[in-house]
Amino acid sequence: MIKSFHPPQRILMGPGPSDVSPRVLEAMARPTIGHLDPAFVGMMDELKVLLKAAFRTENELTMPVSAPGSAGMEACFVNLVEPGEKVIVCQNGVFGGRMKENVERFGGECVLVSDEWGTPVSVDKVKAAFEAHPDAKILAFVHAETSTGVRSDAQALCKLAQQYGALTIVDAVTSLGGTELEVDAWGIDAIYSGTQKCLSCPPGISPVSFGPKAVAKVQARESRVPSWFLDKKLVMGYWGGEGKRAYHHTAPVNSLYALHEALVMLQEEGLENAHKRHDHHHQALKAGLEAMGIQFLVEEAYRLPQLNTVIVPEGVDEAAVRSALLNNYGLEIGAGLGALAGKVWRIGLMGAACNRRNVTLCLSALESTLVQMGAPVNAGKALAAAETFYQG
Amino acid sequence: MIKSFHPPQRILMGPGPSDVSPRVLEAMARPTIGHLDPAFVGMMDELKVLLKAAFRTENELTMPVSAPGSAGMEACFVNLVEPGEKVIVCQNGVFGGRMKENVERFGGECVLVSDEWGTPVSVDKVKAAFEAHPDAKILAFVHAETSTGVRSDAQALCKLAQQYGALTIVDAVTSLGGTELEVDAWGIDAIYSGTQKCLSCPPGISPVSFGPKAVAKVQARESRVPSWFLDKKLVMGYWGGEGKRAYHHTAPVNSLYALHEALVMLQEEGLENAHKRHDHHHQALKAGLEAMGIQFLVEEAYRLPQLNTVIVPEGVDEAAVRSALLNNYGLEIGAGLGALAGKVWRIGLMGAACNRRNVTLCLSALESTLVQMGAPVNAGKALAAAETFYQG
Repeated sequence: MIKSFHPPQRILMGPGPSDVSPRVLEAMARPTIGHLDPAFVGMMDELKVLLKAAFRTENELTMPVSAPGSAGMEACFVNLVEPGEKVIVCQNGVFGGRMKENVERFGGECVLVSDEWGTPVSVDKVKAAFEAHPDAKILAFVHAETSTGVRSDAQALCKLAQQYGALTIVDAVTSLGGTELEVDAWGIDAIYSGTQKCLSCPPGISPVSFGPKAVAKVQARESRVPSWFLDKKLVMGYWGGEGKRAYHHTAPVNSLYALHEALVMLQEEGLENAHKRHDHHHQALKAGLEAMGIQFLVEEAYRLPQLNTVIVPEGVDEAAVRSALLNNYGLEIGAGLGALAGKVWRIGLMGAACNRRNVTLCLSALESTLVQMGAPVNAGKALAAAETFYQG
Repeated sequence: MIKSFHPPQRILMGPGPSDVSPRVLEAMARPTIGHLDPAFVGMMDELKVLLKAAFRTENELTMPVSAPGSAGMEACFVNLVEPGEKVIVCQNGVFGGRMKENVERFGGECVLVSDEWGTPVSVDKVKAAFEAHPDAKILAFVHAETSTGVRSDAQALCKLAQQYGALTIVDAVTSLGGTELEVDAWGIDAIYSGTQKCLSCPPGISPVSFGPKAVAKVQARESRVPSWFLDKKLVMGYWGGEGKRAYHHTAPVNSLYALHEALVMLQEEGLENAHKRHDHHHQALKAGLEAMGIQFLVEEAYRLPQLNTVIVPEGVDEAAVRSALLNNYGLEIGAGLGALAGKVWRIGLMGAACNRRNVTLCLSALESTLVQMGAPVNAGKALAAAETFYQG
């Protein structure tokens, strides 16, 4: 007989999921009601308002896709890429590669612009790609690369796409709620995110927003979208404007309670304050890590405060360090992905996990573990450096 | 400022979501852990064992798709239908129509076998379709039609498909946990279900199982699956057999806690006992409804005990009745869908909602409401009839 599962209590400082606030967990456990119940429909309306505020957009088609971030990505590509169309995809980490997979699976032709992992998307290379392929219909890039901790210049890339008459699809899975993100002011046409990063919700839902040009493209589309579940024309009848909601699929009621609560908390804190908090604790963590002698992968100007990718010191068994942190402290940090596997750690400071207690715990636990393993780090300096920053 | 959302407490006796047990809600609110945490991976292994038991299968590829039932449907069709292939789709309600949409969107050629809504799939018509289309590769049908409350003969249909060398795709969204369902004994090749019906979980996850022939077809497939999120070849690396799990997408951690708990409860009760319970309370509800003079849409032999579709009495404003039940009793029953809109109510007795208290409440509240509206029903008889049944 299998028994009830009681998870250990962790501190989640990896690349997501991040720690979920007790307020959000409690919201998730509220009684399930029908997905067509007037009370639920009212909650959905509020959710749209809250999501629009988080994305900084007036886009009417702003809604949570009923599945994780990779389905949000697919919702953008499957609706906006028509067979035979050219799409410029920027790859500077794992998720650009997934975008390429999406384009190809939906019959698009991918023009790949590659940059080294750990560096931002090169605006110049994208410009050159547009010059070589003036018929490209879409530019797709990752704002905050979860696999490397790099922030690319979304504003400049969107401006470029507009100059060449292309739509933009932007991955904001790790940026939403943690870093400046301006959907309307930057002219982003389609964007997707995740709940389990800086919004500090359990994973499973993907906030998505389509601007007027993206909606027009969906409506003018000639070929049928090769997905029923993610077809925005159908979904619009459920989440769209006014009037009676047409049944499309059964919404994940309790997961949406959780997202609503997380967004209410973000509204209470204020978006700018949330960004400042992420930056503040990042600075403290950085001071401590550098005092220990640990180097960042990413150049300072392009670092994501919510995801700190650092280089594993010479000779250290990185998996053993992560296991020791998990087993001795209940502390999760992330491994490297793809080309960076074995070479870096990814230390998240996302949402509810982004606080002074966690910075202090992470520095102390990491230092103790590394010193015990005989790693080449400066002992006894990290905490003082973080403390100096906090007091400064 | 938008405030926290506190849902009203309902009794969910519609076509799903059904009432969720407090045990499951509590499980959902347990602390989120990482989706690659060894403790989570252990939970996933248990979840597979529990799902296999519920589906009555040894299929190694048995897993929860990270999205609602309609994504589970899509996972089956997008992986198994190759462009140009003929698929026989049985339509006797809304969900057969959605299957047709799936086949066409993935480039298949649909051979439609239609039966009147409220009647089961005709095995003879399917046989005729196979005779006319011996090159059909797949037979797709709904075991328990959520839009009509009809059970079709899945065993006979699967046998027929085997005779003609076709795979089967079966919709068991409303049957799993409520009605006899034998994936291995009946030779079902691919099946999907939902969590929010007889498993009494919040909506958002779709249990899916692929048998050996379906897996072989996926592996031999020449064209790339037009979905990254639902590509079973990729998902197998995460949920598949042994060894290290490859990262595919971030699993909806807390929703899977809930499903695990619901399946532990089903294991405790026993699958056969759960079926008997659904049948038992259905009989009591039926006795009460018939004493009131309310007729069932579906012939007795094909009724689903967990979903009672009854005809709205002459001259009654059906929407007003549902509103009155919701507002005065917090009781949700379902409207008709598609061709049956305005003509029927769908009264669910699913999972945790299937109990004597709910049967009694539903009969009493419905009778009071109808009598107040001057509807042509026999007053004062329903409760006594249900009581007589319960006493035996």
